[in-house]
Amino acid sequence: MADTVIDLNSDLGEGFGAWPLGDDEALLGIVTSANVACGFHAGDPSVLRRVTEQAAERGVVIGAQVGYRDLAGFGRRFIDMDPHELVNDVIYQIAALDGFARVAGTRVRYVKPHGALYNAVVHHAEQAAAVVDAVRRYDPELPVLGLPGSELLRQAQEAGLRPVQESFADRAYTPEGRLVSRRQPGAVVHEPDEVVKRSVRMATDGTVTAIDDSVVAVRPRSLCVHGDTQGAVEIARRVREGLLDAGVEVRPFA
Amino acid sequence: MADTVIDLNSDLGEGFGAWPLGDDEALLGIVTSANVACGFHAGDPSVLRRVTEQAAERGVVIGAQVGYRDLAGFGRRFIDMDPHELVNDVIYQIAALDGFARVAGTRVRYVKPHGALYNAVVHHAEQAAAVVDAVRRYDPELPVLGLPGSELLRQAQEAGLRPVQESFADRAYTPEGRLVSRRQPGAVVHEPDEVVKRSVRMATDGTVTAIDDSVVAVRPRSLCVHGDTQGAVEIARRVREGLLDAGVEVRPFA
Amino acid sequence: MADTVIDLNSDLGEGFGAWPLGDDEALLGIVTSANVACGFHAGDPSVLRRVTEQAAERGVVIGAQVGYRDLAGFGRRFIDMDPHELVNDVIYQIAALDGFARVAGTRVRYVKPHGALYNAVVHHAEQAAAVVDAVRRYDPELPVLGLPGSELLRQAQEAGLRPVQESFADRAYTPEGRLVSRRQPGAVVHEPDEVVKRSVRMATDGTVTAIDDSVVAVRPRSLCVHGDTQGAVEIARRVREGLLDAGVEVRPFA
Amino acid sequence: MADTVIDLNSDLGEGFGAWPLGDDEALLGIVTSANVACGFHAGDPSVLRRVTEQAAERGVVIGAQVGYRDLAGFGRRFIDMDPHELVNDVIYQIAALDGFARVAGTRVRYVKPHGALYNAVVHHAEQAAAVVDAVRRYDPELPVLGLPGSELLRQAQEAGLRPVQESFADRAYTPEGRLVSRRQPGAVVHEPDEVVKRSVRMATDGTVTAIDDSVVAVRPRSLCVHGDTQGAVEIARRVREGLLDAGVEVRPFA
Repeated sequence: MADTVIDLNSDLGEGFGAWPLGDDEALLGIVTSANVACGFHAGDPSVLRRVTEQAAERGVVIGAQVGYRDLAGFGRRFIDMDPHELVNDVIYQIAALDGFARVAGTRVRYVKPHGALYNAVVHHAEQAAAVVDAVRRYDPELPVLGLPGSELLRQAQEAGLRPVQESFADRAYTPEGRLVSRRQPGAVVHEPDEVVKRSVRMATDGTVTAIDDSVVAVRPRSLCVHGDTQGAVEIARRVREGLLDAGVEVRPFA
Repeated sequence: MADTVIDLNSDLGEGFGAWPLGDDEALLGIVTSANVACGFHAGDPSVLRRVTEQAAERGVVIGAQVGYRDLAGFGRRFIDMDPHELVNDVIYQIAALDGFARVAGTRVRYVKPHGALYNAVVHHAEQAAAVVDAVRRYDPELPVLGLPGSELLRQAQEAGLRPVQESFADRAYTPEGRLVSRRQPGAVVHEPDEVVKRSVRMATDGTVTAIDDSVVAVRPRSLCVHGDTQGAVEIARRVREGLLDAGVEVRPFA
Repeated sequence: MADTVIDLNSDLGEGFGAWPLGDDEALLGIVTSANVACGFHAGDPSVLRRVTEQAAERGVVIGAQVGYRDLAGFGRRFIDMDPHELVNDVIYQIAALDGFARVAGTRVRYVKPHGALYNAVVHHAEQAAAVVDAVRRYDPELPVLGLPGSELLRQAQEAGLRPVQESFADRAYTPEGRLVSRRQPGAVVHEPDEVVKRSVRMATDGTVTAIDDSVVAVRPRSLCVHGDTQGAVEIARRVREGLLDAGVEVRPFA
Repeated sequence: MADTVIDLNSDLGEGFGAWPLGDDEALLGIVTSANVACGFHAGDPSVLRRVTEQAAERGVVIGAQVGYRDLAGFGRRFIDMDPHELVNDVIYQIAALDGFARVAGTRVRYVKPHGALYNAVVHHAEQAAAVVDAVRRYDPELPVLGLPGSELLRQAQEAGLRPVQESFADRAYTPEGRLVSRRQPGAVVHEPDEVVKRSVRMATDGTVTAIDDSVVAVRPRSLCVHGDTQGAVEIARRVREGLLDAGVEVRPFA
C-alpha cells in the first residue's frame, strides 16, 4: 500500500461580492487541489485573487472550476446553450483564473466542470466536446477532472488530453458507478466514520459499495470533499487523516 | 516627414449576446491597434473569440479595453469603487482577453481603459494607480495607452511601464490639451475633411488647434478613431488614407 | 367577413443599455399589442419606461414578454430551472413592467413567454405550470398568449385564466400545427406577398397551408409579426394593410 | 412618555441565489418595518417572494430598499449615473417588490435607498431628485425614509411626499447630526447596553450624544437596527425590549 496515491480536491472561491461561501482558508490546509470558481456562476475577481494567492503560498494546486454563466442559479441549472458559445465561455473562465494564478506565481493546472455542467458532460456529447475543445485550444497540457465513464473523460482521452478520474467521498453510487441523484434518499453519506472508511477503500482498493450493496470499481486519482459547512470541513479533515493513517500518500495529480 | 509614424486605434468587440455594435470587420481593415472589450462593460466570450481571431489574421495588434463592471451603463458611468477591487477587475479582464489572444496565436499587447474609467484615470490618482498596479502585476511589458498629462500615464511611467500618448481624431481640445466635455457644444468634430486635416497635423506636427483657436502640443503615438456608425467607419478610412497621403507611416506602437 | 377580428402582436423593448434592437417606434404604428421585454433577457428600465409611455400614447396594449434570466443568451437558451423559482422570476418581470405601465397611465394586459421559455411551455408541463401559477397569483384577469395546443394554453384554461391563440405570419407549420424548427430549411417565409396572403387567410379562414401542403386549422386571435430588421417592419406594415384591405378588423384581444 | 412612538426598521431579503445573508426570520420577530432588497444590489425573486410572504404573515410593514444596479458591489459603490436612468431603475425596483407584496396580500408601504445611494442622496441633489421623482410617479402616497437634513427628505417634502426621519441605533453621530464615516474610528457603537441606552434616548428624548460629547437633536420616527450577524440580531432584540421597557410604543410609521 506504500505506493498508493490520492489527490484531495474541493470547490473554493465560491463567494461573490458581499456574499461569502465556504471556508477557503480551512480547506487550503486539507486539500491538495483547489477547484476555484471563475466568475460565471460564483467567484468575483477579488475572491479569485485571494484564493489563488493563498493556494500558491500553501502549495495547493489550482484548477479552473468552469460553469454556466448563471450567478442567480450558482451554475446548478442546465442551460441548453450553443456548444460553440460554451467553448468560448470555458476559455474565458480558464484564462481569467489563469491570470490570477500567474500573478500569484503559478498557473492553472487542470479543469473541472461545476454543477449542472459537470452533470451534463457525463452524457451530453456536444457540451462535453465543447469543454474538451476549450481546454485543447487554451492549453492541451491541462488535465480534465471528471467522473469515470463520463463523455467528458472519454472525449478528453480521444483528443489527447489527460483525463483524471475522481470519486466522491460522501456520495452514494449506483451499481453502474454513477452518483445516486441528490433527489433520491440516501444520496449523501452523512456519517463521518462511514465517509472516511469509504474514502480509504476507494483510494486503496479502488472500489465502493453501491446503494444496492454491490461492489463497484471506481479507481479514483482524486477524491472530492466538500467545505460549504463547518461539518463538511471537519469531515474533509478526517478523510485526509484517515487516508494518511492508512498509508495513502495524499498528493496532487497535476 | 518620412520617419513620421502613427498608430490608429479603435474600440472593437463591443457587442454583447444578441446585440451587435459597430463594424468590427471594417475597422480591422483600417486600424493598426484594436482595443477589444473584455466582458465587463461590453463583449461576450464569443465576441472576444471572433475579434481576436480576425485581428490576428489581419495583423492588427490586440489591446485590452478594460472598464467598470457595468453592462447596463456600457462602462460610461463612474463607479467609486475600492481601488483594491479595481486592480483585480482589471487583471481579470486583461487575462480573459489574453486567453483568446493566445488561442488566436498572439497576445494582448497593451491596455487602454474605457469610458468612465478612461476619464477617471486622467485625474483620479487611486484608480489610476489601480490600473497601473494591475498591468504591472499581470505583465509589466504591456504599454498603457492614454491621454497625455493624465495620472494614468504619469504613474505608468513611474512604475516602469511604457506610457503611450494618444490623441482623438474627431474631438475638440481645451487650451490645456484636455478633451472638451461631450456635454459642451463643439465637443466633436463632425466634418470629415476637418477630421482628416486635424489628424494629419497631430501626426506630423504634434499639435492641434484648441477650441479657443490656440495651438496645443499633443504629440500622439496613436490616434483614436471611431467605428460605431457607418459614417464613423468612413471617416476612419479617410483618416488612414490622409495619413498615408501625407507620407505618415501607419504602424502599431506595440 | 365584417366581423372577423385579429390582433397584431410584436416583440418590443428588446434593447439594453447602449445596445438598441428593432424599431419600436415604427412597430407601435403597426401592431395593436406590444410584447415588452421585462429586463431578464432584454430591456432595461429606461427602455421599459420609454416603450410603455409610447405604447400608452398610441393606444397599443402592453403585454409582459417574460423570459429566462439570461442577458448573454437573449432568453433563447432553455434553462432547466426549478419551477418554484420560475414562478417568482415571472412574477418579478410582470410586476416590474406593470410598474412602468401604471406610471404611463395604463396596465400590463397580458403575458407572453419569450424565446426558449415560449418553446419550453409548449410541452414542458412543470414550466408551463409555473408561468400559469405566476399569472394567476399576480393577476388572474391577465390573458396568456401562446401557441394553440400548447401545455401553456391548456393549463391556463384549466386554471381559469384566459388562453389566447396566436399564429405566426412568417413561419412555416407542420401538419400538426406546430412551428417548423428554425433549424429546418423553409422554416421562415421570406416573400412579403406570401406572408401577407398567409396572414389574411389565417385571420379570415383560420387555416394555413403546412409545409407538406396539407391544410391546418390554427384559428388565431392574434398574429405575431417581427420588427427586428428594416425588412421585417415593412412586412409587418404590409400584413396590417393586407388585413384591413381584406375587411379584417385589427383590434387588441385584451 | 405613554405617547412616545417609534418604528424599528432593518434590511432584509439581502441574499442572492445560493448566497444567504442575515437572519430574515429572526428580524421579522423584532422589527416593525422591513426594508426589502429588490434585486439590483441584492435579493433575487425567490428571496423577495419568501420575505414578503413572511412579513405579511407577521404584520411587518414592507418597504422597498432600492439601490444601484451592482450585485458585485452590493450597492455600496457610488455610481455617477444619469438621473433620468436612476428614476427608472428606482421605479423598476419598487414595482418588482410591490408585485410580491401584492401576491402576499399587502403592498409596498415606503421607500428607503440603500448603501451608496443612501449616502449619495444625503447631498447629491440630482440623484435625490431622481429617487423622489420615481416615488412620486409610482405612488405619491409612499413615504420616503432617510436621514434628517438630507436632500432626499427635503426634496420629498417639497414634492408633496411624506418624509420620515430615521436614526441609527448603533452609529456614532457628528455634532451636525450626520453619521460618522465608517472609515473613522468609533463610527459604530458595539457595546449592547450602550446601543440600547442610546436607542431609548433617541426615541424618548429625540437626542443623541455626538462623538464630541455634544448633544444633537435627531427626532427619529424610526430606528434602524442591523441583522447581518448573530450578534446584531441579539442587539436588535435588546433594543426592542429596551424601548418597550421604557414605555415606548413600537409601531410602524407607514
